[in-house]
Amino acid sequence: MQFTRKDIDALEHLYKINFVNSLSGFKSANLIATKSVKEVTNVAVFSSVVHYGSAPPILGFVLRPTTVRRNTYDNIKETEFYTINHITESMIHEAHHTSAKYPSEISEFDKTALTEVYKNGFHAPFVKESSVQIAMKYVEEYPIKINNTLLILGEIVAVYVDEVLVEKDGFINLSKNETVAINGLDAYVTPANSKRLPYQRPK
Amino acid sequence: MQFTRKDIDALEHLYKINFVNSLSGFKSANLIATKSVKEVTNVAVFSSVVHYGSAPPILGFVLRPTTVRRNTYDNIKETEFYTINHITESMIHEAHHTSAKYPSEISEFDKTALTEVYKNGFHAPFVKESSVQIAMKYVEEYPIKINNTLLILGEIVAVYVDEVLVEKDGFINLSKNETVAINGLDAYVTPANSKRLPYQRPK
Repeated sequence: MQFTRKDIDALEHLYKINFVNSLSGFKSANLIATKSVKEVTNVAVFSSVVHYGSAPPILGFVLRPTTVRRNTYDNIKETEFYTINHITESMIHEAHHTSAKYPSEISEFDKTALTEVYKNGFHAPFVKESSVQIAMKYVEEYPIKINNTLLILGEIVAVYVDEVLVEKDGFINLSKNETVAINGLDAYVTPANSKRLPYQRPK
Repeated sequence: MQFTRKDIDALEHLYKINFVNSLSGFKSANLIATKSVKEVTNVAVFSSVVHYGSAPPILGFVLRPTTVRRNTYDNIKETEFYTINHITESMIHEAHHTSAKYPSEISEFDKTALTEVYKNGFHAPFVKESSVQIAMKYVEEYPIKINNTLLILGEIVAVYVDEVLVEKDGFINLSKNETVAINGLDAYVTPANSKRLPYQRPK
């Protein structure tokens, strides 16, 4: 099938967002959790967490102006702290429910079976059910001109990871614990058949 | 296992990059292909392609200063055009080999079994073996202050997709064709067991 840009722009709204959201390939599946200065917690599913660097360790994610994720943003800007928590297969229904539009005074932790947990005095809650939990501190943001989205970058402050996942050379084998990926807007998939390939040199 | 930021900064180099590259969760697996003004083609594997918006349709990816991806960048800046091509399971060995450091006068299409193909007069080559091929035009770039990486945004000009993957509502079911995802730096996984969940409203 061929779609020119004119075809894409003319697609029906739901068809277009399903289609274009699938085009980047599989996406990471994470819960970002925050707590406001008024102590209200918030947790929401994100599929745009990306690695920006290892030294210093930096992760980025994208906030879309059309989705109601302002609680996450407001809490990060007020407090500087948030957590990124991996989603595994047994968590997908509860994780996906965090995409429902709740008012800011409601915590998604109270509306789902996800459990908030605190570690080492860090301000933001972790998701207890996640086998990889990352404490993050806001670093900088980039307003994207073309469509008013916002790229948020943070540095990793601490990592809590199920030790069964971590191999001898530091590789975290996410298939061992049924960590999921996201396809498009709303499909959750479980990667398997993990093959590590050697470092490549010119032939 | 717990890693404080101090622990992470002190990790041995390879352990650190394996570990931190795994922390974002599963990543998309794409080949970005370009052609220089001197008609030399280039193709390289990227795991950072992210959806930035559907109207207009925008995808972003990250260039790391420490990896030799300057051919991709130089060609995009010179010509404005590139393609993003999904990687499926049968392609992983050839796709991964594009990470070898070849000089700019060598095309990775000549060093791998990947085949370049041209469509509708578009300047950059597509990867024939990919079941999703996306023609892209450069839009803008954001230099990231914290670590000198570069976020490149482009708009989708055209899409060529195997019609067996596209469902009635526009969702591209990437599991149907063994599209892969990347875990960390060098592990390729094949997602399955795709579950689509309904649009969520507050309980």
